[in-house]
Amino acid sequence: MDLWLRESQISDAVMTYKIKQTLIRKKTKYQDLAIVDTYCFGKMLVLDGIVQTTVKDEYVYHEMITHVPLFTHPNPQKVLVVGGGDGGAVKEILKHPTVERVVLCEIDQEVIEQCRKYLPEISFALDDPRCEIFIGDGIKYVHEHKNSFDVIIVDSTDPFGAAEGLFGRSFYKEIDECLTENGIFVAQTETPFYLPEVVKGIYNDAKAVFPITKLFMAGIPTYPSGFWSFTLGSKKYDPQKVDLSSSVNINTKYYTKELHKACFVLPKFIENLTK
Amino acid sequence: MDLWLRESQISDAVMTYKIKQTLIRKKTKYQDLAIVDTYCFGKMLVLDGIVQTTVKDEYVYHEMITHVPLFTHPNPQKVLVVGGGDGGAVKEILKHPTVERVVLCEIDQEVIEQCRKYLPEISFALDDPRCEIFIGDGIKYVHEHKNSFDVIIVDSTDPFGAAEGLFGRSFYKEIDECLTENGIFVAQTETPFYLPEVVKGIYNDAKAVFPITKLFMAGIPTYPSGFWSFTLGSKKYDPQKVDLSSSVNINTKYYTKELHKACFVLPKFIENLTK
Repeated sequence: MDLWLRESQISDAVMTYKIKQTLIRKKTKYQDLAIVDTYCFGKMLVLDGIVQTTVKDEYVYHEMITHVPLFTHPNPQKVLVVGGGDGGAVKEILKHPTVERVVLCEIDQEVIEQCRKYLPEISFALDDPRCEIFIGDGIKYVHEHKNSFDVIIVDSTDPFGAAEGLFGRSFYKEIDECLTENGIFVAQTETPFYLPEVVKGIYNDAKAVFPITKLFMAGIPTYPSGFWSFTLGSKKYDPQKVDLSSSVNINTKYYTKELHKACFVLPKFIENLTK
Repeated sequence: MDLWLRESQISDAVMTYKIKQTLIRKKTKYQDLAIVDTYCFGKMLVLDGIVQTTVKDEYVYHEMITHVPLFTHPNPQKVLVVGGGDGGAVKEILKHPTVERVVLCEIDQEVIEQCRKYLPEISFALDDPRCEIFIGDGIKYVHEHKNSFDVIIVDSTDPFGAAEGLFGRSFYKEIDECLTENGIFVAQTETPFYLPEVVKGIYNDAKAVFPITKLFMAGIPTYPSGFWSFTLGSKKYDPQKVDLSSSVNINTKYYTKELHKACFVLPKFIENLTK
C-alpha cells in the first residue's frame, strides 16, 4: 500500500509526504489530530490536515521562535508559551540558564498527551520541573496574568479557525499587559510568499501595540513555501542592537548569534510589507 | 478535468501544482521540456519533470544569482551565463549599467525558443543587443575562452544527469581560467535540507579553486525545501566586505544591499557544511 499525506494549506500548490504508518489519528474536542511516520521527515504532528512539526526539521522553528526573543532579553526568567503542546518550544527555552519557569498554556490536552506518547524526542522537556502545564484558553490565561512574563511566545496553529483569536490587535494588547516591564513577544506569522496580506496585517497589529516591532525569517521545509515569518514585539530591547558577545553558548542546529541579527534583514518584497 | 504537475526531485516529499493547461511539451535533443500554466505560480518551465522557473517567483533566483556577484565586482563588463536559457539571469544582469556584453551559453536551443514564445516576461532580455547567444556545450565554451569574463554564472539544472559536468573541481578550474584577473563565479547549488552532502561537495570543490568561497541562501518556494543555496567563488573581492554604499540602485523585488551581506550568514547546520 502506498500511503501519502496531502497537506493543502495552499489549495493549488500541495505538498505530499510518503508515509510509513499512521501512529495515531483522533478527533479531539478542538481538532483532527494525527501523528504519522514519514519517510522524509520522520514522525510528524498534523492538526486539521496541516503539518505542525516533524522530528527532522522541528529545530528550525523551535530554535528561532525561542532563542531570538530569549537572547534579546538580558535576563529572561519567566516565559509563557501559548499553544506549543508538542513541547518543542519548551525544550529550547529550557536551554537558557536564566529561565526559572515556563508556563505552557495549551487548549488541547490531547496534543500534549499524544506528543508525549509518540514524539518524546520533541516533547521530553514538558516533564522538566521548571515547566508548568496549564490546559485552557490562551486568551483567558493572558488576560488573567498581568505583568507576569518576561517573554511570551505564541506558538499557535494558523490564524484561520481555532487559533484566530491568538492573532490581532486586541490580543496583542493583552499580551503587552501580560508582559513584564521590558518584555518581549514573538509569534509565528505565516509565509509572505502565499499570504502577504496576512503577514502585513499581523505586523501592523503588533506595531500598533509594541514600540519595537520586527519581522524575521527562517527556512522551514515542511511549512508552505519553505520560508516562514515570525513577528517580534518588544517594549524596550531591539533584537538587532543587542550585544550578544557575552551571551551563553547553547547547543543549536539552526540559530547562531550572527543569524540572530541577519534573520531580520528582509528580502525587499517582505520589507515592503512592513512599510 | 483536474490536472496536476507532480514534481518529484525528492521522491518521498513531492510538491504538486494544479495546472490550467500545458502550453508546450516536447522531447528535445537533451531533455523533456514542458511549459505549463499553473494556478499558483503562473507559467512554469519544467525540464525532465523538475520545476526550473515560474513567472511568479523567478525573481528570487534570478536576482540572487546575478546581483550578488555583479555588485561584488567593482566593474563587471563582460558576463557569461552557462545554462539559463530562460533568459531570467540575463534580464537581471542587464540592469547593471557597467555591463557591456552578456554571453548566454545554452546547450539546448529549444529551451531558448520555447521560453521566447511562451515566457516573454522572463526571456525578453535575450533580444537585447548586449546579449549574445551561443548554442553549445558550456564546458567546451569555457575551455576555449581564457581570461574573458568578469563574472561567470552557472545557471544549470541539477548536478545529476545532463548538467553533471557543470559541477566539480575540474570544471571550476576551467571557470577560474575563463575569468579575468579579479573575476567572480556563482552557481546554484541545491538545498542543504535534502542534499547536505551535495552542497558540501560542491562547496569543497569550489574552495579548492577559489581563494574566497562562500555559500549564500535564498527562499525559493518552487525549489525543494524552499530554501536554496548558491556557491560563490571569487579571486579577490569578498562579497561580505564590499562597500555597496555608492553602488547604483536597481529595481528588485528580493535583493537589497543589506541582504547582499545578510544572505551569507548561514544557519548553523549549513555553516557546518563549509567546515
